[in-house]
Amino acid sequence: MKLLIECEDQVGLVHKITGVLFDHNLNIVSNNEFVDHTNKRFFMRTEFYDDVDTHKLKKDLFVVLQKKSIVSLFDDRPKKIIVFCSKEPHCLGDILIRNQFSQISAEVIGVISNHNDLKSLVEKFNIPFYFIDHQNISREEHELKILDLLRDKEFDYIVLAKYMRILNESFVNHYVNKIINIHHSFLPAFIGANPYKQAWDRGVKIIGATAHFVTSELDRGPIIVQNVASVSHSHSVEEMKLSGRDVEKSTLAKALNLVFEDRIFVSGNKTIIFD
Amino acid sequence: MKLLIECEDQVGLVHKITGVLFDHNLNIVSNNEFVDHTNKRFFMRTEFYDDVDTHKLKKDLFVVLQKKSIVSLFDDRPKKIIVFCSKEPHCLGDILIRNQFSQISAEVIGVISNHNDLKSLVEKFNIPFYFIDHQNISREEHELKILDLLRDKEFDYIVLAKYMRILNESFVNHYVNKIINIHHSFLPAFIGANPYKQAWDRGVKIIGATAHFVTSELDRGPIIVQNVASVSHSHSVEEMKLSGRDVEKSTLAKALNLVFEDRIFVSGNKTIIFD
Amino acid sequence: MKLLIECEDQVGLVHKITGVLFDHNLNIVSNNEFVDHTNKRFFMRTEFYDDVDTHKLKKDLFVVLQKKSIVSLFDDRPKKIIVFCSKEPHCLGDILIRNQFSQISAEVIGVISNHNDLKSLVEKFNIPFYFIDHQNISREEHELKILDLLRDKEFDYIVLAKYMRILNESFVNHYVNKIINIHHSFLPAFIGANPYKQAWDRGVKIIGATAHFVTSELDRGPIIVQNVASVSHSHSVEEMKLSGRDVEKSTLAKALNLVFEDRIFVSGNKTIIFD
Amino acid sequence: MKLLIECEDQVGLVHKITGVLFDHNLNIVSNNEFVDHTNKRFFMRTEFYDDVDTHKLKKDLFVVLQKKSIVSLFDDRPKKIIVFCSKEPHCLGDILIRNQFSQISAEVIGVISNHNDLKSLVEKFNIPFYFIDHQNISREEHELKILDLLRDKEFDYIVLAKYMRILNESFVNHYVNKIINIHHSFLPAFIGANPYKQAWDRGVKIIGATAHFVTSELDRGPIIVQNVASVSHSHSVEEMKLSGRDVEKSTLAKALNLVFEDRIFVSGNKTIIFD
Repeated sequence: MKLLIECEDQVGLVHKITGVLFDHNLNIVSNNEFVDHTNKRFFMRTEFYDDVDTHKLKKDLFVVLQKKSIVSLFDDRPKKIIVFCSKEPHCLGDILIRNQFSQISAEVIGVISNHNDLKSLVEKFNIPFYFIDHQNISREEHELKILDLLRDKEFDYIVLAKYMRILNESFVNHYVNKIINIHHSFLPAFIGANPYKQAWDRGVKIIGATAHFVTSELDRGPIIVQNVASVSHSHSVEEMKLSGRDVEKSTLAKALNLVFEDRIFVSGNKTIIFD
Repeated sequence: MKLLIECEDQVGLVHKITGVLFDHNLNIVSNNEFVDHTNKRFFMRTEFYDDVDTHKLKKDLFVVLQKKSIVSLFDDRPKKIIVFCSKEPHCLGDILIRNQFSQISAEVIGVISNHNDLKSLVEKFNIPFYFIDHQNISREEHELKILDLLRDKEFDYIVLAKYMRILNESFVNHYVNKIINIHHSFLPAFIGANPYKQAWDRGVKIIGATAHFVTSELDRGPIIVQNVASVSHSHSVEEMKLSGRDVEKSTLAKALNLVFEDRIFVSGNKTIIFD
Repeated sequence: MKLLIECEDQVGLVHKITGVLFDHNLNIVSNNEFVDHTNKRFFMRTEFYDDVDTHKLKKDLFVVLQKKSIVSLFDDRPKKIIVFCSKEPHCLGDILIRNQFSQISAEVIGVISNHNDLKSLVEKFNIPFYFIDHQNISREEHELKILDLLRDKEFDYIVLAKYMRILNESFVNHYVNKIINIHHSFLPAFIGANPYKQAWDRGVKIIGATAHFVTSELDRGPIIVQNVASVSHSHSVEEMKLSGRDVEKSTLAKALNLVFEDRIFVSGNKTIIFD
Repeated sequence: MKLLIECEDQVGLVHKITGVLFDHNLNIVSNNEFVDHTNKRFFMRTEFYDDVDTHKLKKDLFVVLQKKSIVSLFDDRPKKIIVFCSKEPHCLGDILIRNQFSQISAEVIGVISNHNDLKSLVEKFNIPFYFIDHQNISREEHELKILDLLRDKEFDYIVLAKYMRILNESFVNHYVNKIINIHHSFLPAFIGANPYKQAWDRGVKIIGATAHFVTSELDRGPIIVQNVASVSHSHSVEEMKLSGRDVEKSTLAKALNLVFEDRIFVSGNKTIIFD
């Protein structure tokens, strides 16, 4: 199990918290702490083998923690995820293969798309594919249809695997820190549309990808993982896109692993990652 | 020697040019061509062992090339360079050590600074140090003083080794494609002041540095080399700067090698690099 | 089309060859040459748009080239490939997804395995899966069965996508420079079995993967692509394997692209790559 | 100050240790733990602002720790180091520049060399240079002369900055985990002499450097940092060396920072690094 604690920093916290863990007789696999001295915030992640009375553990922790502290306990079952996609198969395909062979701590329970292109791929893996057309309706109407579909589903995270539509604030606010996106540039460079074209125009020598949590501000959510690939003058925009695809795929996969293993705290617009 | 040719693309260019080289009996070490199909420009770099009658070679080349073609011949003597710096020693120090042990194809003939901090370092290596104070005078006046100093010096390139002042267009236009800067961010991210603070605020997971030719537009000149380093939530702005220094230093050194070995064409706002 | 020429180096080769290309009126997209001065070998790769009378082009080239020169012409059709695998799905899965969406210059015409584990994955994509059991037979017998199967298939390359058996010299010699393997270490470190365990024992801080052509000497064939990933003391052997998988997958994919676009010369135990 | 504790793992260690720290009223900046489950060893590094009664702190810690535990306390003064070099200036030069501008947590108190080539460089920085000729004497005699010189010097670490001689076991045993070397290859590949020639012969696509503690077994000591650079078929051995130099320099610098900030535990043949 994983225990994540976030609270105001104060002297003696580790001692107090580990005292509670000791009383519960936990066999600790790993323990990490971080103090954000700027904001006086304390973060701690503890992994332990045992099953535990989560109710009692939380109760005991709150005896030593202040009121506004955040205590989360996660068991080791795979996260349930919904994947959104559009037309590009590389990120989705990678997730489907990992899902099929249990090489990701998650279970894909459905794929939603505004296009039909990837239906047959998804269905090969016996995963429900939901086509929700965005044509001739407003962004709001489209998102309401998606929300309708999601309403009766139980899931932990939404993964935007090259879903090429911007989500409204009203949608995002339903799933705070629960939507992970892969952006096809090294943010904050090349925000917005056509980042590879922008990169080519600028003559950069390195391109990148950024996996981040989605917030209501476009391309400005907390960054989880970034990665890069070298390019040269001889690359066309198309070739940059091809190179970029591989970086996107591996960057998203790395981010998903971190999220699904409960290794990340989101604090303001940043992530604290214990890997 | 190195022969660099840039011209409008046309069929048969390589054949025609290599015909001339063949007639001159050149022993070619390496030969590279690139065609920019978007702008229909042809670039060719040829390295050969021999001394050659450069006047005759150029003349013969222009028989087969169109009028507006650009033909440059470079011998293998080290470039003469002037280094500009301010207070930070890491890039300058690296250049001085390389210069001292002939590990750069260049000879530093002088260092100009708007501060006195690095005077003693430079003078250890018996290189002239020129302190040109920028206080109480306008940017224009300051640059005129520098131009005065440079007037009677013979040099090939100006290297901005963490020179922390913006150069006016009027100054830059004296040395088109002759000024190389190291920018402390992964351009185009974090243009302008305090890029590490900007990067820290944004919570990026990778920082970078960009070596580029200086044009009149701030931080927008043709990019030569970019490189990156990983950072995490545990890095303060200061620690990012420390990491960044090493990337800046190695990125600038790599760019200087490419420039000084005449491996770069500047075309519009981009570089074509044969490495 | 792609024209690849390899021959003994001599003065004027580029001029002579491009003269022939000029006579054939070819629109050259890109042209690269390399001279191996140690072995006095010349390598040239030319990409052009046009269809061409390949017979006549070759004939004309041999007028200017010496007898032992090697001239190859490749059209732009995807290569036909056979993939070998064992139990691990990550490299195979990546190839199948790319194959399905034409994101690789190849067509997978069949998958051969000594295990049945990946049968259902392969058949999802309507690709023939051949299970050739290696149990209770000698390595020679097993390979003869594979050779039997391959005999009537038309294909360009064999890709070993985590095929966990060593191939005998007699097998390899049937397909010189036609078998590509992904080795799960940064060769020449950790040759042989269990490279991740070896890496963990040694306490390395970086692991890697190597894509190479298979020769009769185990893990010693010409290297195509190498790539790395950082690890730390906190990684178990299992976690290194997990990290390693992603590097293996991306390294193999990059190598396959280079091979299938005819960008590689094999010369002795090395590759010359024009990318 | 930094507190480093290494001991046998047992339940409740963090609680007990942080209890002692709490009693001493320490303001903890950062705290890291790691458990090596294979060997049942516990490692903890705590950084705190305060001066502390180190004698009392250690005494109190040993009340809760078992007998064989290792407790080390380090203040924040720069480490005193002796640098060994031979003829190559790049690593030494980098250290001297950093030393001069306090960009390394260390103070170079002397440089020892078996050659005179770098004397003038070292003396520019007003650092004692000791030339100890190795010619016409045995390795043992040479090392005895060095030991003689070192006897009355007070220093924390010896840095081998491209010192091109192998040290005998008898020498190494004087300074266990106190000698840091930069090896010019990506260990364990290319152990021994001429790694760049070996790398070139093998046709690798990536070269690297390894900073490690020196043990009596050549090139087999605990690895601190490794880093890599891309190379291609077009690189000569000399060009690989040039590329390699920059990797060596930056790899060594990174390792020295980790060592000098007391971020490393050596455990068996591995390092545990809290960065």
